[in-house]
Amino acid sequence: MGKNLTTRSEDYSKWYNELVVKADLAENSGVRGCMVIKPYGFAIWEKIQAGLDKMFKETGHENAYFPLFIPKSYLSKEASHVEGFAKECAVVTHYRLKNAEDGSGIIVDPEAKLEEELIVRPTSETIIWDTYRRWIQSYRDLPLLINQWANVVRWEMRTRLFLRTSEFLWQEGHTAHATEKEAVAEAELILDIYADFAENHMAVPVIKGTKTESERFAGAIETYCIEALMQDGKALQAGTSHFLGQNFAKAFDVKFATKEGNQEYVWATSWGVSTRLIGALIMAHSDDNGLVLPPKLAPIQVVIIPIYKGLDQLEAISEKVNPLVKQLRAKGISVKYDDRDTQKPGFKFNEYELKGVPVRLAIGQRDLDNGTFEVARRDTLAKETVLAEDLISKIEFLMEDIQSNIFQRASDFRNANITEVNSYDEFKDILEKKGGFIAAYWDGTSETEERIKEETKATIRCIPLEAKSESGSCMVTGKPSARRVLFAKAY
Amino acid sequence: MGKNLTTRSEDYSKWYNELVVKADLAENSGVRGCMVIKPYGFAIWEKIQAGLDKMFKETGHENAYFPLFIPKSYLSKEASHVEGFAKECAVVTHYRLKNAEDGSGIIVDPEAKLEEELIVRPTSETIIWDTYRRWIQSYRDLPLLINQWANVVRWEMRTRLFLRTSEFLWQEGHTAHATEKEAVAEAELILDIYADFAENHMAVPVIKGTKTESERFAGAIETYCIEALMQDGKALQAGTSHFLGQNFAKAFDVKFATKEGNQEYVWATSWGVSTRLIGALIMAHSDDNGLVLPPKLAPIQVVIIPIYKGLDQLEAISEKVNPLVKQLRAKGISVKYDDRDTQKPGFKFNEYELKGVPVRLAIGQRDLDNGTFEVARRDTLAKETVLAEDLISKIEFLMEDIQSNIFQRASDFRNANITEVNSYDEFKDILEKKGGFIAAYWDGTSETEERIKEETKATIRCIPLEAKSESGSCMVTGKPSARRVLFAKAY
Repeated sequence: MGKNLTTRSEDYSKWYNELVVKADLAENSGVRGCMVIKPYGFAIWEKIQAGLDKMFKETGHENAYFPLFIPKSYLSKEASHVEGFAKECAVVTHYRLKNAEDGSGIIVDPEAKLEEELIVRPTSETIIWDTYRRWIQSYRDLPLLINQWANVVRWEMRTRLFLRTSEFLWQEGHTAHATEKEAVAEAELILDIYADFAENHMAVPVIKGTKTESERFAGAIETYCIEALMQDGKALQAGTSHFLGQNFAKAFDVKFATKEGNQEYVWATSWGVSTRLIGALIMAHSDDNGLVLPPKLAPIQVVIIPIYKGLDQLEAISEKVNPLVKQLRAKGISVKYDDRDTQKPGFKFNEYELKGVPVRLAIGQRDLDNGTFEVARRDTLAKETVLAEDLISKIEFLMEDIQSNIFQRASDFRNANITEVNSYDEFKDILEKKGGFIAAYWDGTSETEERIKEETKATIRCIPLEAKSESGSCMVTGKPSARRVLFAKAY
Repeated sequence: MGKNLTTRSEDYSKWYNELVVKADLAENSGVRGCMVIKPYGFAIWEKIQAGLDKMFKETGHENAYFPLFIPKSYLSKEASHVEGFAKECAVVTHYRLKNAEDGSGIIVDPEAKLEEELIVRPTSETIIWDTYRRWIQSYRDLPLLINQWANVVRWEMRTRLFLRTSEFLWQEGHTAHATEKEAVAEAELILDIYADFAENHMAVPVIKGTKTESERFAGAIETYCIEALMQDGKALQAGTSHFLGQNFAKAFDVKFATKEGNQEYVWATSWGVSTRLIGALIMAHSDDNGLVLPPKLAPIQVVIIPIYKGLDQLEAISEKVNPLVKQLRAKGISVKYDDRDTQKPGFKFNEYELKGVPVRLAIGQRDLDNGTFEVARRDTLAKETVLAEDLISKIEFLMEDIQSNIFQRASDFRNANITEVNSYDEFKDILEKKGGFIAAYWDGTSETEERIKEETKATIRCIPLEAKSESGSCMVTGKPSARRVLFAKAY
């Protein structure tokens, strides 16, 4: 198996597209803009789901399921929401097919036209808030902390596997609260969960911040986000958490009786991350040899490859390997013993390197003689010989070490690629030659933001939550500015 | 909280509908035929998913994800499949909305019409086999054992929560094999998994069998099924596993190179169970007081209710309860300590009875004095006083005992409601007066099957796999028949 992978320096974008397909993560389907997530890619998504789901449940959230379809009229109820979401979406207009009378095949039955068109959900605020009206009467019903794992559709003209597809999988949380303070705290709690997950499971460092007005979620008062940096110097928004104020409660007339007996509109949040995270994971860590996966999300954490001539040698190797497999599994480490006789060891080495398996063990006749294994780590490609009796503790060490090493590597890269600039010329220069995040003063107006975007394609990724407060003047207009914001070109 | 639940004898159908809503399992949404699965109902689905997913993975299956949309032309490729599925389905014809020029709201943009309409998947054989053509080249690629957890849509005119909804959640397995024998073995393996899950997790006894030609899945050579009996004497199909022969491989041109180098069409299966299982679970066990859930699928297995006056008593009770909660959780038992001060104990007793929590513990001042708990089991409603030191083992016993007791109860009921008849008059009489499964001779023709269905509304639920072979004559036509088949009215 030759990898024949385009290198990152040759063409980063092509490298990504090839890697997704060659590592068996996903592929384009026969339906425009919709991907097939292959078993290996889906196994990563299952790990992402399991990790986040646990964090949501530990903080009191429950899962539920709401309809795929949204009546067209629902979308119009929240004014800015409809502007943001009622554009590129899949519209169901009919509910029946029939055989064409001329025998030419099946056609849409014109008599089965829906009275009101249904939109395939691009996000579920409207259908959920229509439901919450029935669920919320009193302060006793609050807070309502609900999450949904679902597919959503946003019709996209230009799609890329995981990063931008017409259909994608995600989770969307929708919560209702008695007070503004509680709702803001919820939006911030979720942002912290997202950042924790990104950094400690995905090993991807992120910057927490808020979006500018023009980048905010349609219908939100405040959009919190986590922003990550990819190896090509472009930013990727990895998750958003929205404080929605009372906008949806007012649009869908959701009031509650307070303890004092007054009727008040409830306060809301919504938040989501999607299969896009897999794109971030790939682009943050992988190299010219293929995927590099953090142990916590790797479907296979350890692969064992026997190097043998003849069945006798294989049997002797298997006798060593089988108990090891059991021991590792008992410790919760996922392990694959690849004793296929249809492929050679070199082919297998390549395959698991391409697929980013964190640790590879090889064992041949000499190892049998010496009581050793060859241990290779995917992140550094370093190899060493380890005594069989030290192997389990070595692997446990590597699970931790690889996880922290790739986080450190990504952090070093990200930190080296945040540049402070003080003039628009410098800004354009850095953007062109170096990329990454650029910290610059901005006057806070949408006009300036729009001008920068048009002239440079860079957008304000976020107003960092943890930025030092230092006043300066806008790099474009010279007007006063209270602190630097982060610009970047973005996915 | 008065339950005000219609009783089963008054109106079984109304009892079911009320129970689903009152026990907080699901409700109708603003979208015709689509339900909202509420957190408590969804928690049951999560347990069903987890249980089945484990069984699928242990038998070598992997999860993947395929597109929601199916191009209209795909549906037509397998002739009998299109007849079965291209009827009542949601059709996407447009991909954009826009503001109406007269300011009246948003309308479907007539310029954004799809060249080819997309069908929201009613089942995914066609899109998956279109994909498998790319994945399968050689015998080395087989078997391909893939499952998908997804939402599907079949436009239904008359819907009922969980039992028949336009959108529902399910899993669909789609496998490809080198030989007919392997594919048949796979379909049978899955049938066994379904039966195992129904009986040992859901505590619902099922009869395994095959469908008659007219009840077969559209595109299948053989449809295996498990059939359960509800308390009103109607049958419910709880899962199906299809041997598809080479039908889809031929329709989508999926061939593989054999070891000998020949090109052959692959052999296929597909199989699925859905949120309908929750309907079966409710109807098989529940009573006039509410849900009765088997411990293995109950979101809350044990609820603890303090009976107290004043905060001092509550504190003393909590001191006993908190370590107990920890101990139970450490044993993997899900437990809820409901110390809400907004509701009285009687209200809580009612609520958890309605929600089918298998074991309820109550503790008041007298229990504190005596070192006891009151233990109530939901299945029999029996109560007893148990010493604190015996409590854990008592609860562990009850988890097993309630599970097996409700299975036994459902089995006894089912077995008492299988009636052998030898004439059509007797058949109609039993169907009218007793219901249940009726074992009768049938001549094997679709004509007779259709006539019985028209005249009595009973259908052949299955040709049991484990029936004794004994010849007789068809109860309707008197023609020879090799064995009895099972008839019933069905959901």
